[in-house]
Amino acid sequence: MTSLGQWLDLVGVAANAVAGALVAGRRQFDWLGVAVIAGVTAIGGGTVRDLLLDRPVFWIANPAYLQAALAATAFTLLYARTRRIPERVLESADALGLALFGIAGARIALDLGHDGLIAVVMGVITGSFGGLLRDVLCNDIPMIFRQGQFYATAIILGCSLYVGLIALGLANDLAAGAGMLAILGLRVAAVIWNLRLPIFRLPPEEP
Amino acid sequence: MTSLGQWLDLVGVAANAVAGALVAGRRQFDWLGVAVIAGVTAIGGGTVRDLLLDRPVFWIANPAYLQAALAATAFTLLYARTRRIPERVLESADALGLALFGIAGARIALDLGHDGLIAVVMGVITGSFGGLLRDVLCNDIPMIFRQGQFYATAIILGCSLYVGLIALGLANDLAAGAGMLAILGLRVAAVIWNLRLPIFRLPPEEP
Amino acid sequence: MTSLGQWLDLVGVAANAVAGALVAGRRQFDWLGVAVIAGVTAIGGGTVRDLLLDRPVFWIANPAYLQAALAATAFTLLYARTRRIPERVLESADALGLALFGIAGARIALDLGHDGLIAVVMGVITGSFGGLLRDVLCNDIPMIFRQGQFYATAIILGCSLYVGLIALGLANDLAAGAGMLAILGLRVAAVIWNLRLPIFRLPPEEP
Repeated sequence: MTSLGQWLDLVGVAANAVAGALVAGRRQFDWLGVAVIAGVTAIGGGTVRDLLLDRPVFWIANPAYLQAALAATAFTLLYARTRRIPERVLESADALGLALFGIAGARIALDLGHDGLIAVVMGVITGSFGGLLRDVLCNDIPMIFRQGQFYATAIILGCSLYVGLIALGLANDLAAGAGMLAILGLRVAAVIWNLRLPIFRLPPEEP
Repeated sequence: MTSLGQWLDLVGVAANAVAGALVAGRRQFDWLGVAVIAGVTAIGGGTVRDLLLDRPVFWIANPAYLQAALAATAFTLLYARTRRIPERVLESADALGLALFGIAGARIALDLGHDGLIAVVMGVITGSFGGLLRDVLCNDIPMIFRQGQFYATAIILGCSLYVGLIALGLANDLAAGAGMLAILGLRVAAVIWNLRLPIFRLPPEEP
Repeated sequence: MTSLGQWLDLVGVAANAVAGALVAGRRQFDWLGVAVIAGVTAIGGGTVRDLLLDRPVFWIANPAYLQAALAATAFTLLYARTRRIPERVLESADALGLALFGIAGARIALDLGHDGLIAVVMGVITGSFGGLLRDVLCNDIPMIFRQGQFYATAIILGCSLYVGLIALGLANDLAAGAGMLAILGLRVAAVIWNLRLPIFRLPPEEP
């Protein structure tokens, strides 16, 4: 992992912490409850990835990640006391975390010698499981599964693009940049043009 | 693990993926959201088992499992476009996954030298946690806990039977077959005769 | 870990199992479903801690913990058949589990050489994740996040007090006792005086 990679990871942690704090705020949690949710959102995806790949858990190995998550949470709480949170901050922070963590997860799997399918799955887990745990703890249907949000699509396609470009011999940083832009672009495009995949519709109860 | 065991595991993965896809379809998820839910259902239980027992995670060690899950998901999506899903497919696929994974989990724990209680717990986790994670992600009360479903009962008794037969000196494959049939039989009997265990009833709020 | 520490752990496991059984009873689960929920509540927090710290999972290494959880569950089920569960048993059992497990988790992290922030986080995880998993499986908003419950506050402050006293050179058992009393005291005080932290209020939907 390059030094640039570590900076991007810290940005991803902070973005996910902001998204977690905002979701907890909508649920009217108290300040320390907000900190717990923000922390889970920030480090949950990478934690599951590290457990699955049998690596040291990243935020235990390096306390800077927890500190970044706490700082971003405190900033969000203080900011919201004096000003209105701008529209779309939650969606933007979430999309940023998805893009940065997704590609970072896929890259780590490839670096460990796993094949492309495992790398894409690790990207999906790293990018989305923090927000997924957050939504589960808040007793919501995870945002990643909501119709027209294009979450799962964005991260699966973005990580697949990254893995494909690496397989074609592209330099790692270029491929990573392309994958991140693809994830962000697909999320933005989904919001603007209301893109959506076909829905799998079954009757709610057993037919 | 015998080669037969690996085939049964693949069948269990496919059955759980079908059950996951059907639950996601009732929730109107889009196709890739369905794939994520089907994947979690298919590999979630064995993943938790492998983490707890400090073994390499089975689907990372052998990509055939993820491929089986994806193929079963794609088949379910395509089948449902042209034909009506027959009644009871969800329950049957879920019961099959429960039986195959439950006994496989108990067997792995015994092979590692753990005692009978740990083996039964590992069987319950391997068999039921995939469906449990699926239901949590879909924001449902897990099927395993619903009254009259006899899920927890079937898997606890089936795994206990398997462990008991092994302790009595029966050959592993015979004991495994008996355990699987017990799990399937208890689930079928529960549906036909509406069997149920006593309910533990407390007032919904603190008395 | 001292022998006293192991006894306190067993008490914590039993207390959490009682709390889990009571929550499952309010949901009208059948007996074996109650046993599963009680087991998850009893061992969930320590399990996540052990996975994160890459230690052998405590209840797999020592079957006494599972046996204590099962015995406490059976006692709760039998007791409730003949007598009324006294008021506040759930809250008391939950607070006891929070205090015993929280400090035990922080102590283990310090013993492994981790710094104070990681120790506090491990205390929060060990103390609260069992109840958190229980509430997620029962499809509730976790008790730790409910307003005015002062859960997250009690465990974060109690574990911080413990870590701070150790840093000041206090003997481990004294510091542990002080931390546990702080957690219990904060929970009791919160109920009596209706203490609460500031709430982070955002509109329920995107503003």
